[in-house]
Amino acid sequence: MLFTTLAVAAARERMTERLKRLTVEEIPLTAASGRVLAEDIHAPDDVPAFDRSTMDGFAVRAADTFGASEGLPAYLKVAGEVLMGGSPGGILNQGEAWRIPTGGMLPEGADAVVMVEHVEEAGPDIVAVLRPAAPEENVVRRGDDVRAGTVVANEGKRLRPQEVGLLSACGVVRVRVRKRPVVGVIGTGDELVSAEAIPAPGQVRDVNTPALAAAVEASGGVPVIFGTVQDELPVLRDILARAVGECDMVLLSGGSSVGTRDLTLQAIASLPGAEVLFHGLALKPGKPTVGAVVDGKAVFGLPGHPGSALLVFELLVRPLLEPELLKRVPLRVRLGRSLRSAPGREDYFRVRLVEKGGELVAEPILGKSGLIATLARADGLVRLSIDATGAEAGELVDLFLI
Amino acid sequence: MLFTTLAVAAARERMTERLKRLTVEEIPLTAASGRVLAEDIHAPDDVPAFDRSTMDGFAVRAADTFGASEGLPAYLKVAGEVLMGGSPGGILNQGEAWRIPTGGMLPEGADAVVMVEHVEEAGPDIVAVLRPAAPEENVVRRGDDVRAGTVVANEGKRLRPQEVGLLSACGVVRVRVRKRPVVGVIGTGDELVSAEAIPAPGQVRDVNTPALAAAVEASGGVPVIFGTVQDELPVLRDILARAVGECDMVLLSGGSSVGTRDLTLQAIASLPGAEVLFHGLALKPGKPTVGAVVDGKAVFGLPGHPGSALLVFELLVRPLLEPELLKRVPLRVRLGRSLRSAPGREDYFRVRLVEKGGELVAEPILGKSGLIATLARADGLVRLSIDATGAEAGELVDLFLI
Repeated sequence: MLFTTLAVAAARERMTERLKRLTVEEIPLTAASGRVLAEDIHAPDDVPAFDRSTMDGFAVRAADTFGASEGLPAYLKVAGEVLMGGSPGGILNQGEAWRIPTGGMLPEGADAVVMVEHVEEAGPDIVAVLRPAAPEENVVRRGDDVRAGTVVANEGKRLRPQEVGLLSACGVVRVRVRKRPVVGVIGTGDELVSAEAIPAPGQVRDVNTPALAAAVEASGGVPVIFGTVQDELPVLRDILARAVGECDMVLLSGGSSVGTRDLTLQAIASLPGAEVLFHGLALKPGKPTVGAVVDGKAVFGLPGHPGSALLVFELLVRPLLEPELLKRVPLRVRLGRSLRSAPGREDYFRVRLVEKGGELVAEPILGKSGLIATLARADGLVRLSIDATGAEAGELVDLFLI
Repeated sequence: MLFTTLAVAAARERMTERLKRLTVEEIPLTAASGRVLAEDIHAPDDVPAFDRSTMDGFAVRAADTFGASEGLPAYLKVAGEVLMGGSPGGILNQGEAWRIPTGGMLPEGADAVVMVEHVEEAGPDIVAVLRPAAPEENVVRRGDDVRAGTVVANEGKRLRPQEVGLLSACGVVRVRVRKRPVVGVIGTGDELVSAEAIPAPGQVRDVNTPALAAAVEASGGVPVIFGTVQDELPVLRDILARAVGECDMVLLSGGSSVGTRDLTLQAIASLPGAEVLFHGLALKPGKPTVGAVVDGKAVFGLPGHPGSALLVFELLVRPLLEPELLKRVPLRVRLGRSLRSAPGREDYFRVRLVEKGGELVAEPILGKSGLIATLARADGLVRLSIDATGAEAGELVDLFLI
């Protein structure tokens, strides 16, 4: 198999267009925080559902207050009171003022609210308005916030607290969301033992399986760990076939570099109907990545090094779980130290964020690329584009928080 | 009760020092993604646990290759092979080279690895080394990544996939974490009906209760909804007492502005042992906030407007659930439009992030402050400090993503 590297965006596109859509389920909005919408949501109701006051004060006809001043107030008759949560139960006539609280329903006939601070009691049921009110002042009209029928949240959106609030306000109580994708995770490598085992000399613990499972969970998926397997084709093929059968997506890690062993690729390619979409990304770290589709499901062979595996997860896997990530604008940050990169690939560098002279500065984390301790020290990733040959200290570069 | 406003940081501090510590539980690392560590974690084992090669090639004594070149190679005897996951099972002697894969265990006696690209097979069991290897070249020594005993993750850290990976690598299989805090959520207001109800004229759906419950969940807590109650002191006091009894923290929303009704404050203050720490924050939006401690548990009276309630949640409540948030460095962004603010309070503005001329620009979202639809359009919040009177378009300001 030819080792041709593919740009990250092209790899993403090639995979996305071949994937089966995830099953949809309908759930109560109260259980939908963090879930991904399976359809655009149209507001069933206007918000607010009635004309409201935005201040404590008096509902009036603005025309009745024109020219009012402290020296020459407009005297109005207090003819009613709006109670919180109640209907005014009457019409406001010319020359009248109705007491109204913030959020109270504006009586018919009123078109403005005078703040309580701009009014003086001037006798039994008489108020003196000391300033003119403009029409619509301190009033929100029915539908001003959300008009019934408009789209208030888009398909693919992962619901944050503020969307849950907005949907509640519009009267949405159930939503259709994508089922949480079940993602199988398999570690491969003759040197690997499970994280719970005591490694013999020469053996190491499988770091990628628990780290990728945690990444799946943080992205709203349901990880299923299929364990750590040795580099033996029949064993790997069996476990992979089982994982593809039971899951919506499968992540293998380790064993994907071109060398003596490209068992991952062989095992993936051997599955009935497997289509290998790319083998090798124009990406550092993360070049030795395999991407395939089997039965409409994504199967990834991720690099063995945890830093590379987590980066490829972030760039290729996570956007499949949280599609709106692709729309996000990269943050921009000043680089604390010059970096070199090779044109023809995207380069990512782990950074710490520090404040320097009122600006945010990304300090690349030094250390050999194979180290694991540096991963946990990073606040984010800086990207140098596929054309770049590097970036100078002080230059503005793209930043992704991790 | 005097309405004195308190700075956000002071309010946070005053509350934090009076709170009871959350119960601790020990769980498997595989279940700990997103949980908050209850103690510093010291690495039980060195990582790596043995000297390793970082390249495919030949383990050698560097001294045996000094002066080697393409014209005058160093000829070494291939005396062994290290298998992936195995122990070398022998000592590398002077004049010897052992085949070794990336990640293989370095044989005793070797102090460098020559990459396979810099070696030629020169006969049966003889290799010609074409370049000198420096001592320690392509080698990672035991403990170079993590030394046993060092702190690899701090108390209060919310575990990300990379920490799960690092802890796995060190042999940590169980961790002591804070129990997920149970947070009671109560909506108050005569005008409110639950989000599921059809509001009568003058009534509105309770937006804060579902939005705050979602925010609790997104911060790693367990929300318990106690429902939406009318502004009646005995009712509110009863439900509040029950919530404080059953939960680790309680959030009320609505009813906390100084006006005719400060029932929230009365209800909170009426609980046995309640200590009201502040009533009013030097914050916009979010001024009418009550903070109290009852029996070592935080009780908040949040503002009624969803935007204000979610902001106070972000600034005061969330850091109690995810303490490391207080250590984060604010991002910095250029302002797309000038903003006015009043000195003596922190001002927050909802913004959309857009790219302009290679820089990230925060565009304040316009619209009346009472609107809900604008909440869901925001990517982040821009902060103007307590001394600021505003910020000009193009100025760098603090940004928090939401």
